[in-house]
Amino acid sequence: MTSKLIDRRDLDFVLFDLLGAEELFQRPRFAEHDRAGAAAILDLAESIAADHFATHNKKADQNEPRFENGQAIVIPEVSEALARFREAGFFGATAEAAEGGLQLPLTIANAAMALFQAANVGTTAYPFLTIGARNLLRAHGTPELAARFLPAMTEGRFFGTMCLSEPQAGSSLADITTRAEPQADGTYRLFGRKMWISAGEHELSDNIVHMVLAKMPGAPAGAKGISLFLAPKYLLNDDGSIGARNDVTLAGLNHKMGYRGTTNCLLNFGEGAFSPQGAPGAVGYLVGAPHQGLAAMFLMMNEARIGVGLGATALGYAGYQHALDYAKSRPQGRPLGAKDPSTPQVPIIAHPDVRRLLLSQKAFVEGALAFVLYCARLVDDGETHPDSDKRAEAGLLLELLTPIAKSWPSSFCLAANDMAIQVHGGYGYTRDYMVEQLYRDNRLNPIHEGTHGVQALDLMGRKLGLAGGKALHLFLTEVEASAAQGIAAGGALARHGGALKQACADIARIAAQFRPDMLEKAAPFLDAFGHVAIAWIWLRQALLLQGREDDFARGKRAACAFFFDWELPKIAPVFALLDADDWRLSALDAAVFG
Amino acid sequence: MTSKLIDRRDLDFVLFDLLGAEELFQRPRFAEHDRAGAAAILDLAESIAADHFATHNKKADQNEPRFENGQAIVIPEVSEALARFREAGFFGATAEAAEGGLQLPLTIANAAMALFQAANVGTTAYPFLTIGARNLLRAHGTPELAARFLPAMTEGRFFGTMCLSEPQAGSSLADITTRAEPQADGTYRLFGRKMWISAGEHELSDNIVHMVLAKMPGAPAGAKGISLFLAPKYLLNDDGSIGARNDVTLAGLNHKMGYRGTTNCLLNFGEGAFSPQGAPGAVGYLVGAPHQGLAAMFLMMNEARIGVGLGATALGYAGYQHALDYAKSRPQGRPLGAKDPSTPQVPIIAHPDVRRLLLSQKAFVEGALAFVLYCARLVDDGETHPDSDKRAEAGLLLELLTPIAKSWPSSFCLAANDMAIQVHGGYGYTRDYMVEQLYRDNRLNPIHEGTHGVQALDLMGRKLGLAGGKALHLFLTEVEASAAQGIAAGGALARHGGALKQACADIARIAAQFRPDMLEKAAPFLDAFGHVAIAWIWLRQALLLQGREDDFARGKRAACAFFFDWELPKIAPVFALLDADDWRLSALDAAVFG
Repeated sequence: MTSKLIDRRDLDFVLFDLLGAEELFQRPRFAEHDRAGAAAILDLAESIAADHFATHNKKADQNEPRFENGQAIVIPEVSEALARFREAGFFGATAEAAEGGLQLPLTIANAAMALFQAANVGTTAYPFLTIGARNLLRAHGTPELAARFLPAMTEGRFFGTMCLSEPQAGSSLADITTRAEPQADGTYRLFGRKMWISAGEHELSDNIVHMVLAKMPGAPAGAKGISLFLAPKYLLNDDGSIGARNDVTLAGLNHKMGYRGTTNCLLNFGEGAFSPQGAPGAVGYLVGAPHQGLAAMFLMMNEARIGVGLGATALGYAGYQHALDYAKSRPQGRPLGAKDPSTPQVPIIAHPDVRRLLLSQKAFVEGALAFVLYCARLVDDGETHPDSDKRAEAGLLLELLTPIAKSWPSSFCLAANDMAIQVHGGYGYTRDYMVEQLYRDNRLNPIHEGTHGVQALDLMGRKLGLAGGKALHLFLTEVEASAAQGIAAGGALARHGGALKQACADIARIAAQFRPDMLEKAAPFLDAFGHVAIAWIWLRQALLLQGREDDFARGKRAACAFFFDWELPKIAPVFALLDADDWRLSALDAAVFG
Repeated sequence: MTSKLIDRRDLDFVLFDLLGAEELFQRPRFAEHDRAGAAAILDLAESIAADHFATHNKKADQNEPRFENGQAIVIPEVSEALARFREAGFFGATAEAAEGGLQLPLTIANAAMALFQAANVGTTAYPFLTIGARNLLRAHGTPELAARFLPAMTEGRFFGTMCLSEPQAGSSLADITTRAEPQADGTYRLFGRKMWISAGEHELSDNIVHMVLAKMPGAPAGAKGISLFLAPKYLLNDDGSIGARNDVTLAGLNHKMGYRGTTNCLLNFGEGAFSPQGAPGAVGYLVGAPHQGLAAMFLMMNEARIGVGLGATALGYAGYQHALDYAKSRPQGRPLGAKDPSTPQVPIIAHPDVRRLLLSQKAFVEGALAFVLYCARLVDDGETHPDSDKRAEAGLLLELLTPIAKSWPSSFCLAANDMAIQVHGGYGYTRDYMVEQLYRDNRLNPIHEGTHGVQALDLMGRKLGLAGGKALHLFLTEVEASAAQGIAAGGALARHGGALKQACADIARIAAQFRPDMLEKAAPFLDAFGHVAIAWIWLRQALLLQGREDDFARGKRAACAFFFDWELPKIAPVFALLDADDWRLSALDAAVFG
């Protein structure tokens, strides 16, 4: 099964050759690690992913969680797989060693996570959310609150969730209505309903720690009045043991197209199913300052969004591995111009259109993997680079590129999954093959953690002008440097470098001419900007492999050239659309839509 | 429910204003019909579709056919809906009145069919296949054979199938191995396995008439040795009544991503479950000349492929109607620049990015509908135009455009379904909303009846040079005439006309420069050619509506302009890719893929 996850040769190349991850082990925070140790951790992740995660991926899809007697029933294999994940310490992969974690760089931890996501994205969602909730608590919770909940989350005994959306408020968090009433003892009581809560209910962990956005009475209207609370499924006794049930209850499970192994819940807070300590409401503990909940949440959003991009990439990558395997083993038809029916059929990988579908997938998924791990490296650099200017620069680049890291794989690795089905023909449309499920699983990614449209507004409306345009300038400077290297290298690399140089000029022009009405075209701009970022990471890979003539290097060069010649030119009409000033979607009468 | 099918105002505009369908009623074959009668037929189709087809679409998806005791068990609503369809005469919509049919133009019959497909594509597949099998039998069967089976198929008492693929031979029909052994009485006995047979088994009709490709002993190798046979599920007694079971048995049902209401079967022919007349093999009757089976089948393929495009269009169209309805009724967020949280939220149709998603869907699905019905009109003109030259021209245009009619809606109306999900946000990812199923249903269309890659080779490798390039010349002449009209009209229409004129020049250049190695780029060429065809049908609609200032006309103009400004420019990089001579996918070593 391992060949159907992420190609380890590729992963090692990206981590150590492209991203220079060994440099991270020189820093005090990561000094306990080295390349051999990191490789052993990836080996362990790969082995658990193959032996315990991939093995129940289809079963979890075919047996989605059931809502029975107020509980969400999940197939037992999920719990068994997460026990292996827990024993190996992956819940605390990036957590401080002093707090029971492995204290790994995010770059390495995310590489491990991608192996699990490729094997089974639904089961991996439980630790993914737990780690996010844990980081949020650690960053903003009081030491007392952290002391009570953090160790069990780092260890993976308590799982976590993020409770933002409500049935009437998805992308518009300003309009949430869950209320938090202050109590005499400094705690709060929460009342409201939360929607789309992944891992919101299950029996997989000793407790579930919900990180909940809610409003206090008299809070400012809108987003500025949102506070963050921790509300556990079970209250803790003074000695830290599991106590009474809090009034957080499962109101219903959503039945999804894919991602079915993860429970996705409508949760009731304070609707009266339980009365903790004899009073109404779900007990909540304030995390961070009052009314600063959204800001706190968004501080963690970059990592969460990169994680979504990583998951989308892993699904696309797994699909490519399946399609490649099928294309090599399925005989069908003969080469164009060699139609003698008495000759044997050839494996379909011999057909140019199948090669187009495969090379396109390879260009998308390997490009996305390199890019999302580059963004993880920016997180590490932002936190641990020895040079404070470099830390600040990494932070700015990360802010700029997070909407790309979330959205580009969500669109284009989903497109890769579509192509993986096409390679399989009719078989790919059946549930007997994995590619069908991977496509359904991946369709979630353009929706959650900020829709594609929300990412587009973020990139164009906020990030282009971030720090007076410094973030964009930093990025374009990096890209232009790679372009110049390509031009200097000659041959195909010079052609690619020239195209990238032109793309930088186009982005700079659009940014300089930015007017608010251009936000109507933010979505195609997001995709085009993403294509430039992916082209850049491809050129960097090709530059590194100059002179190498093995299959791996030739494959990387072919995928790089394919992306530059077949994909990157698609940005030109987008920039022309942005340059033109002849569209106001907002000016149309709604009646014209029909 | 009717508002979620096809907009009747649009359908009437396309049929009677754009395609001039009333002209057809002047021809002897259709003289019994008129516009009022056609409208009544569409009303009836709409009403049966809404009341009997749409009503069980989700239930059929959630309760896919079960394989029990050799039978395929389908939910009872399918049978009830098809009884209404049968009573209304739609099985014989285009069949001769003398043979019990309605003798409608295909243009009108397909408009009716689109209403059923939009309501429930899975249930509609049974008559769709029956009509195809019936037409094949009528065109190639002996009068004796036709007399025994045709009336019951026209009436809808017997259903039909097309048995082409085998487990080892999908796109490569030359490699089928089902054999047909001649018998002393002039019949044949069939032995083999057929795969992907839609409607291959069920209890919905009195009999199932399989049209089967097989090879006789000693036949030429490959495609030139394929013959066509009729093999019924039940043999008929001399008086035409249902007789003994033929040896055609269900070996298994495929479990698909979507299209679940239609059984999709692995069928065994002559494996010994039954011994008709005491001898082994499935009884088959030769249809057409020996070894001419593939040619006979392909004569019917244009209509079948247009039908696939029509189904893809209908699914996209239904998704758009759902998305539009949701966008009008779902409040969320506030306009950009008006963020006061105390103001009420606006329906999401107010947001520019939602409008982009809606207008894009409208441009895709209405463009596709007009185009596939135009192709149906070509079928009618090819058969009934009073001028024999025009009949020949219509035939050539139909040959050229069939791969577009099949593939463009299969790609871009699937993309519309994807956007319909995105408009719904998280709700669109759940099975509570129809858009999730429509997306899964539509994913079949780029695969069956010739994959997207097969259509691309057909267009570029065969159709561009058809009749010495006359087919292409006819089409470009039509498009250039519309472009000239646009240019003469001024304003936005002149801009669109100019773009279309340039596109014609690009296609003509590619065709003139055609080399076989360009077939490696046939798939992007297919999409680009399709964009030109859809842009043309949009310009024709806009030209017709000049001067009209109602919402309908404004909506058509907005969608036309959107397609020209946001979509058509995407063809330029494709033509540049085709002009460049720097790619040989076939020259890559297979090892570079990984």
